[in-house]
Amino acid sequence: MRATLHHLEQTIAERRSADPSQSYVAKLTAKGRGKIAQKVGEEAVETVIAALSGESAEIVGESADLLFHWLMLLADCGVSLDSVLDELERREGLSGLAEKAARKE
Amino acid sequence: MRATLHHLEQTIAERRSADPSQSYVAKLTAKGRGKIAQKVGEEAVETVIAALSGESAEIVGESADLLFHWLMLLADCGVSLDSVLDELERREGLSGLAEKAARKE
Amino acid sequence: MRATLHHLEQTIAERRSADPSQSYVAKLTAKGRGKIAQKVGEEAVETVIAALSGESAEIVGESADLLFHWLMLLADCGVSLDSVLDELERREGLSGLAEKAARKE
Amino acid sequence: MRATLHHLEQTIAERRSADPSQSYVAKLTAKGRGKIAQKVGEEAVETVIAALSGESAEIVGESADLLFHWLMLLADCGVSLDSVLDELERREGLSGLAEKAARKE
Repeated sequence: MRATLHHLEQTIAERRSADPSQSYVAKLTAKGRGKIAQKVGEEAVETVIAALSGESAEIVGESADLLFHWLMLLADCGVSLDSVLDELERREGLSGLAEKAARKE
Repeated sequence: MRATLHHLEQTIAERRSADPSQSYVAKLTAKGRGKIAQKVGEEAVETVIAALSGESAEIVGESADLLFHWLMLLADCGVSLDSVLDELERREGLSGLAEKAARKE
Repeated sequence: MRATLHHLEQTIAERRSADPSQSYVAKLTAKGRGKIAQKVGEEAVETVIAALSGESAEIVGESADLLFHWLMLLADCGVSLDSVLDELERREGLSGLAEKAARKE
Repeated sequence: MRATLHHLEQTIAERRSADPSQSYVAKLTAKGRGKIAQKVGEEAVETVIAALSGESAEIVGESADLLFHWLMLLADCGVSLDSVLDELERREGLSGLAEKAARKE
């Protein structure tokens, strides 16, 4: 029920065309999709490492980094957050191993 | 405004203690945090590759896999989705490079 | 002084054009560079997780998987193992932080 | 037949206990295994991205970074390069899908 991610998606959309010297989003966007994708990979690795070392504050921080850059990557690819949520809801209709099996086909 | 991720978080919480032969969540949970973390890393890599090859349907599918396993990892670490959304909202108060600088300190 | 990696590089080069039903290298090669790259990412994540959980046998096994698929990726890109070893030797001439600084410029 | 990696392994072993203000190896080692592992993950992601964008010089550079940090991770875990080469040679005895099947069991 929270609008956090949709709000963030909108903020990212607005900042992509901002002045790169004023906006992190504009600056990273200007470097190209490869660099945005690289950040997604890096933040995922950091989330994994934080989870294995088990400190909650770090997991929260790295997860926020991961979601932020993942939304930037979606934006760069012209894919909406809603399309991913739709897919998750579609899968929610299924369950357990059946869901997994269906997903992998 | 959509409850998708919170609903998924609840579903995962319920299924963690289900019969592993009936539930993918229970089955992966039983394998331990390392295996859940590994899935997060793998799905992030697949999302990155899908983004670079640029096919929307694949980006959506891999992103859904990434979010799903990331929520499973949060659950295994006892971290709530809300704590990550809180952190993202806290950062939203900041902006552009200032935000990034603040985040990295 | 061991020829292991060069020998493996040669084996991979020979098997790329083998019958995919007989050779893992040929089979993965046929799936395209994205799938080879995905394996490199996955094996790196598994190596990281093995290192953090600290079991030597697993680190060895995952590292072997990582090197194997990394050599497959090099082959698919037409990059030789020697060109990477040359680069490492070039850097060895430099040292410590100076080396790192030079590398990042 | 080249001694590059073994030489690098030795250099890393020597520098681990050097002055962190003078040596990148000592500096990163002092930050702990999690940070070394993180670098392995990051460089793997960068290698994947370089391979997909297809520029040889970048693949060589990122691969060198990957091998360097992977050797640092091995050192931190007390695992020798030779133990990984032994494992690769053991697998070389096997072949094709048989090898893969054996490896996964």
